[in-house]
Amino acid sequence: MNALTSLADIVGSRHLIEAEALRERPQDFWNNVPTRALALVRPASVEEVSAVLAWCNRNGSPVVPEGGRTNLIQGTAASPEAVLLSTERLNQFDAPDLGAMTVQAGSGVVLQALQESCHAAGLRFGLDFGARGSATLGGALSTNAGGFQALRYGVARDQVRGLEVVLADGTVLSHLTPYAKDNTGYDLKHLFIGSEGTLGVITRAILRLHPAPVTANTALLSFTDFDAVTRTLSRLRRDLQGTLSSFEIMWREFFEFNVDALCGGRSPLSESCPFYVLCEAEGFAPDMDDARFEAVIMQALDAGDVKDAVIAQSARQRDELWRIREDFEAEQELFRVMIDFDISLPLSAMDAFSREVDEALNTHIPEFLGLHILGHLGDGNLHVTTGLPTPERSDDLKALVYGLIAKHGGSISAEHGIGLNKRDYLGYSRSPEEIATMRLLKKALDPKNTLNPGKILQ
Amino acid sequence: MNALTSLADIVGSRHLIEAEALRERPQDFWNNVPTRALALVRPASVEEVSAVLAWCNRNGSPVVPEGGRTNLIQGTAASPEAVLLSTERLNQFDAPDLGAMTVQAGSGVVLQALQESCHAAGLRFGLDFGARGSATLGGALSTNAGGFQALRYGVARDQVRGLEVVLADGTVLSHLTPYAKDNTGYDLKHLFIGSEGTLGVITRAILRLHPAPVTANTALLSFTDFDAVTRTLSRLRRDLQGTLSSFEIMWREFFEFNVDALCGGRSPLSESCPFYVLCEAEGFAPDMDDARFEAVIMQALDAGDVKDAVIAQSARQRDELWRIREDFEAEQELFRVMIDFDISLPLSAMDAFSREVDEALNTHIPEFLGLHILGHLGDGNLHVTTGLPTPERSDDLKALVYGLIAKHGGSISAEHGIGLNKRDYLGYSRSPEEIATMRLLKKALDPKNTLNPGKILQ
Repeated sequence: MNALTSLADIVGSRHLIEAEALRERPQDFWNNVPTRALALVRPASVEEVSAVLAWCNRNGSPVVPEGGRTNLIQGTAASPEAVLLSTERLNQFDAPDLGAMTVQAGSGVVLQALQESCHAAGLRFGLDFGARGSATLGGALSTNAGGFQALRYGVARDQVRGLEVVLADGTVLSHLTPYAKDNTGYDLKHLFIGSEGTLGVITRAILRLHPAPVTANTALLSFTDFDAVTRTLSRLRRDLQGTLSSFEIMWREFFEFNVDALCGGRSPLSESCPFYVLCEAEGFAPDMDDARFEAVIMQALDAGDVKDAVIAQSARQRDELWRIREDFEAEQELFRVMIDFDISLPLSAMDAFSREVDEALNTHIPEFLGLHILGHLGDGNLHVTTGLPTPERSDDLKALVYGLIAKHGGSISAEHGIGLNKRDYLGYSRSPEEIATMRLLKKALDPKNTLNPGKILQ
Repeated sequence: MNALTSLADIVGSRHLIEAEALRERPQDFWNNVPTRALALVRPASVEEVSAVLAWCNRNGSPVVPEGGRTNLIQGTAASPEAVLLSTERLNQFDAPDLGAMTVQAGSGVVLQALQESCHAAGLRFGLDFGARGSATLGGALSTNAGGFQALRYGVARDQVRGLEVVLADGTVLSHLTPYAKDNTGYDLKHLFIGSEGTLGVITRAILRLHPAPVTANTALLSFTDFDAVTRTLSRLRRDLQGTLSSFEIMWREFFEFNVDALCGGRSPLSESCPFYVLCEAEGFAPDMDDARFEAVIMQALDAGDVKDAVIAQSARQRDELWRIREDFEAEQELFRVMIDFDISLPLSAMDAFSREVDEALNTHIPEFLGLHILGHLGDGNLHVTTGLPTPERSDDLKALVYGLIAKHGGSISAEHGIGLNKRDYLGYSRSPEEIATMRLLKKALDPKNTLNPGKILQ
């Protein structure tokens, strides 16, 4: 039987989109090229996902799972003979369980819908990032997304209590447990979380929730040296008593560039400093959180670690401070051929790394258009962005930066994953033995290389 | 070459103990039978561990890794031809890194030594349980131990940033990363954590740390119904603003038994109630934590959920309250042939489960000697203990209780693991598909079945 007929029999012909029609939509949010694939199917249940995978595995059709297609790694790029498996109809989710503080959701649910449902129940889903309006739970789990709240709540895998996943041959592994402790043999869920759809298709999860904070305090701080930044992180972690949600560092070049672009050059702080931090605490005590936050910031100023500080006095001022950190429009124009790195480093290596990158670019790629460094300091996670006037030397530049990451024992992908884009650089962060073990696992779980072939591993 | 000579060449003859000498020590803390094994080796480095494993794998000798031998699952029981690999000489650990809030430690370090070193630096290692004075880090990680602080800090795997592990064939997988975000391919560490030494031998880890709290407040609460207990857990999680460390439930029969045994029958609370909770908050604000704790407990009383409450007024009173929860001496006498279950259940099923176990024992095993239920409610984790006058009907009793756990979607091992003891019951919590996947992984990573054979899986 013909592939399209067989797949339409499983999902219903309304939920199979053929190659011709797919070409009209972009491959993903970041790559405005036509989607290539034999077809896209939209199964509505784990049984349909299982039947699609079993058919494809039997018939040698590669399967590329897709969620909101907001990944930055070409994680859902497909070959012309591949079947795209969209999770968009697996978008049911329950009301949060208030006693257990958990929620069960299909992998196709959009992150923001889940966040809002939890918030309405007085609870918080501890995962948030820019693409919340399009990204799906399944995508976030399969790439182990990070984001703004990881300092407090951990990354995507830390939110998961139980998981349902379909293997390449259609086998359903369902372990939808709501409790925090479960030591019954190997922890299979963590193998699938972060494996970018190459070992299984996540169809549903039970997620832990947290009490939703009711207060927010935000400050912008400046520093004259890096050690003072890390000392202040430790201080805030301790003295803000677990309410610290964000601690976002910006190197001067990025900060002043965005202040110029967004605030007409009028910095919220008086003097120019090499490092800035946007920090935020979210608490539960409206009668005392503001005063405590102010007192802790004052103590950090008095200790001499913080050079200058401004505390947002209104929601509008808070948004203005966050905009300096979050707005990348001007940067995108500046950098023309933009090259960005999403990396982790030991805290103790960050300062040296940033100087060495700057030096190396100046020496070896003098045509580079600037160096913007910022990130989630508490997670050891920096975003390093630069640009070139023309693309010719992009690979040289990447090799140079990845080499410095490897030298300092860093990770070439902190929160975005590997996909196609970073596959050739995996060896900068993982040893040959580790990569061989990954291949062994891939081979054991997907011997016919059906699932998202070519992603992470060649 | 002879096995003993070859192994002595690797670790040094002083660090090889032969079968005869081993027979003089008990197999483990809970089983006072002679240790059986061909020999015990004590490698002093990852290189020596690698060489021992490579030799054993090549020569068909099973290897059983051991740490503090405090596990409750016969996780280190060996066959006469097996080589015991003790991690006791892998006990080096660094001073905690104050900026990064991490510590690097060998797997042979005793938990308490690590805790104390972190505490002296103003930091807390977020894992604690009764066997802290003997249990090793490697044992805690390989069984994914839980314990008293999991409500706040998570279980053993949640403490791990980076891991070094040796595979069955001697391959070293080293990924000693200190940062929180790292999405460079499959997360191998989580496969080894909790796999009870059947997939690899953990030799070293980088662990995350937390600020050490400086205040502690403890209360004993009583409740007339179970829903009021779970509502109070949610309330305390919210209103104690992240400082809640423990929320330990005790069913009446256990509570009153221990009050009789330890307090001469004088309960700290006035009336008899079906449920009691020992809760504790640890904070950072000496000037306000006591008052806040008292206010939150008063609000729970006013809301009618908490029937009665006593707040410890001194360290002595705090110890007395904890003793009711932690002392098992009298229970051990009572139950003669003691049978205990370490389970997780959905919160919504706990009340019904406890009634059904009681009913089933009364109906089918009327000679049972009582039913003690207590546990870490916030983790969904109960410890259920009963006893029989003689051992004949132990298996009937176990099948009955495991059947009820399975009926309610529970876990037959919350924090102790499977080992030999629960191997035959694994199917009560994991599906045939999951168990087949575990076998597939074992086969892929340890094709000759060298590592801890027969544990978890037959």
